Amino acid sequence: MAAFRVELAAAAHDVHVGPGLLAQVAQLARDAGLPGGRAAIVTDANVARFYGDAVRAALHEGGFEPITIEVPAGESSKSLAMLETVYDRLTAAEIDRGSTVFALGGGVVGDLAGFAAATYLRGLPLVQLPTTLVAQVDSALGGKTAVNSRAAKNLIGAFYQPRLIVADTLALATLPDREFREGLAEVVKYGAIMDAPFIDWLERAMPAILSRDPAALEQVVERSLRHKAFVVAHDEREGGLRKILNFGHTLGHALEASAGYGAYFHGEAVAIGMVVAARLSSRYAGFSAGEASRLERLIAAAGLPTQMPDGWRSVDFLQALRLDKKRVGGEVEFVLLDRLGHAVTRKLSFDEITSGA
Amino acid sequence: MAAFRVELAAAAHDVHVGPGLLAQVAQLARDAGLPGGRAAIVTDANVARFYGDAVRAALHEGGFEPITIEVPAGESSKSLAMLETVYDRLTAAEIDRGSTVFALGGGVVGDLAGFAAATYLRGLPLVQLPTTLVAQVDSALGGKTAVNSRAAKNLIGAFYQPRLIVADTLALATLPDREFREGLAEVVKYGAIMDAPFIDWLERAMPAILSRDPAALEQVVERSLRHKAFVVAHDEREGGLRKILNFGHTLGHALEASAGYGAYFHGEAVAIGMVVAARLSSRYAGFSAGEASRLERLIAAAGLPTQMPDGWRSVDFLQALRLDKKRVGGEVEFVLLDRLGHAVTRKLSFDEITSGA
Repeated sequence: MAAFRVELAAAAHDVHVGPGLLAQVAQLARDAGLPGGRAAIVTDANVARFYGDAVRAALHEGGFEPITIEVPAGESSKSLAMLETVYDRLTAAEIDRGSTVFALGGGVVGDLAGFAAATYLRGLPLVQLPTTLVAQVDSALGGKTAVNSRAAKNLIGAFYQPRLIVADTLALATLPDREFREGLAEVVKYGAIMDAPFIDWLERAMPAILSRDPAALEQVVERSLRHKAFVVAHDEREGGLRKILNFGHTLGHALEASAGYGAYFHGEAVAIGMVVAARLSSRYAGFSAGEASRLERLIAAAGLPTQMPDGWRSVDFLQALRLDKKRVGGEVEFVLLDRLGHAVTRKLSFDEITSGA
Repeated sequence: MAAFRVELAAAAHDVHVGPGLLAQVAQLARDAGLPGGRAAIVTDANVARFYGDAVRAALHEGGFEPITIEVPAGESSKSLAMLETVYDRLTAAEIDRGSTVFALGGGVVGDLAGFAAATYLRGLPLVQLPTTLVAQVDSALGGKTAVNSRAAKNLIGAFYQPRLIVADTLALATLPDREFREGLAEVVKYGAIMDAPFIDWLERAMPAILSRDPAALEQVVERSLRHKAFVVAHDEREGGLRKILNFGHTLGHALEASAGYGAYFHGEAVAIGMVVAARLSSRYAGFSAGEASRLERLIAAAGLPTQMPDGWRSVDFLQALRLDKKRVGGEVEFVLLDRLGHAVTRKLSFDEITSGA
């Protein structure tokens, strides 16, 4: 079990990582200064089946009176229509500014519940209870919340920090295999951009990780979250350092959007994006071609895709690339590696980006 | 002409007040560090008729390439549906993080455009160009943005500071009389809660103000905005001092909501709310009954209503009061006066509040 703090000026908060922590959520929330009383658990149907009753009971026992707002599982719940449903449920429950929102689930739930908490009554206290590997190693930390517009993914959102993050690594046991593997893409990313020894360790530990060895999982989640916390603490609003977290994501997002949401899981698209970005790194940032291949092998060993799909040069893909949030004018601030464990950013044109794919 | 700065740690910005400033908006925006290029003017049909072309031309001349997003005039445009329309227009225009949103209009436009700017791509630079008295003396400054949910007004929103505020007092010349008068409610409020000499001046200057004497208007707007800037600079997120700005608003909001949006203008409902709050101040905070009557006379002299409507003890009204954002548990943090020019807050029960109405 590990606990550490995300050092943010106005919104510093604790992170707890370990097996079985969901049972202690009420006490951890109290320790974080949350007052108990009315609360809302936002979760999805899959997660509710495994953990909904347990978390509700644990909160109730610890002095919270939670309602549960269950949304359908999947990306389609990150819509403005679903957001409005969440608002209406909060209103019906007379949730007020002293009430806490608990986001119990993966990235979709964290984004949706987080944006609802950010915007309902101009801000309710938020606790992230990530249950997927993607959410535990990445999306629950950093304060990015979002929903999708009709036009593009995550186009609508806010920076809004949680008051507490509790990552119960036992929850990873029930995760379907494909969802587990996609989380490993973000894990590999931290090694690639800021921790070369982590890459060495991942190469050795991958069999244990894939068999979901509890000690290996705790190590994976804690080390990843500490890296993310470091970056976010130094650049909460993505003005500088935080951009390196987008390694593999510019192409990844465009792949996700153009293939139709759901054809690729986020982590799968990022995996392909990292392989291409490593190749572009050799071309534009002096990254060794051998290390690029090594990264590609590790990504493949995690059971993740490494190749752009047939027909990726579609109008849809190029249009999705143009809608990237990091675009300013005609170029994209693209994240490359100049050596393993160290990222740099370069302005690349759309042609330069697609030349590496 | 006056210029001053809103002193906020991470979001300090300038305010300009004076006649004819809309013609200089491009230069003022450049001076505020905004880069030119793609931009969006969000406005309503009424305001567009008077100022749309002029502002678009002024921005174009100054190096911006603005699209205009025109929404219907009125509170009904502060909906999630209209917000989605704004998002879609921003997407179609390929607005990116370097593009500025100009909110040209009254409170509705400022709130809608402000919330859109706060949440599109997790935040675009925002310039407030208030054209109504309510917006010029109050809503354009302070970073509160919001839309209405199906259930209640301003239930969905964010704190998001503009990069610049330009209040062109000439724009007040075209304001319909009822909209002009409602703005005076907020002006009287600043005097009541923090500036007794301003009340003296308003009593004397009211005829000149009502005849829209340019010098009187500039004085009204500048002195009001400086007061608001002081309060907001000391309490950006409404944790303490800023609550005093809600003087008259708890009852005012409940009146607005229960009478059906539009039956009362915001300022009219606040005017009645201030009269009741002054009466409650005599009962619960030692405010002189004579000063309460004096405040009521000034409000009446501004052409504003001072009496609760017949039948106000409706279920709708009481329910609206219970939905107040400032509610925590069963009580409301209510703003009272202990003397003219000085506000205090007291926790009042719903019964205590309604006893004074």
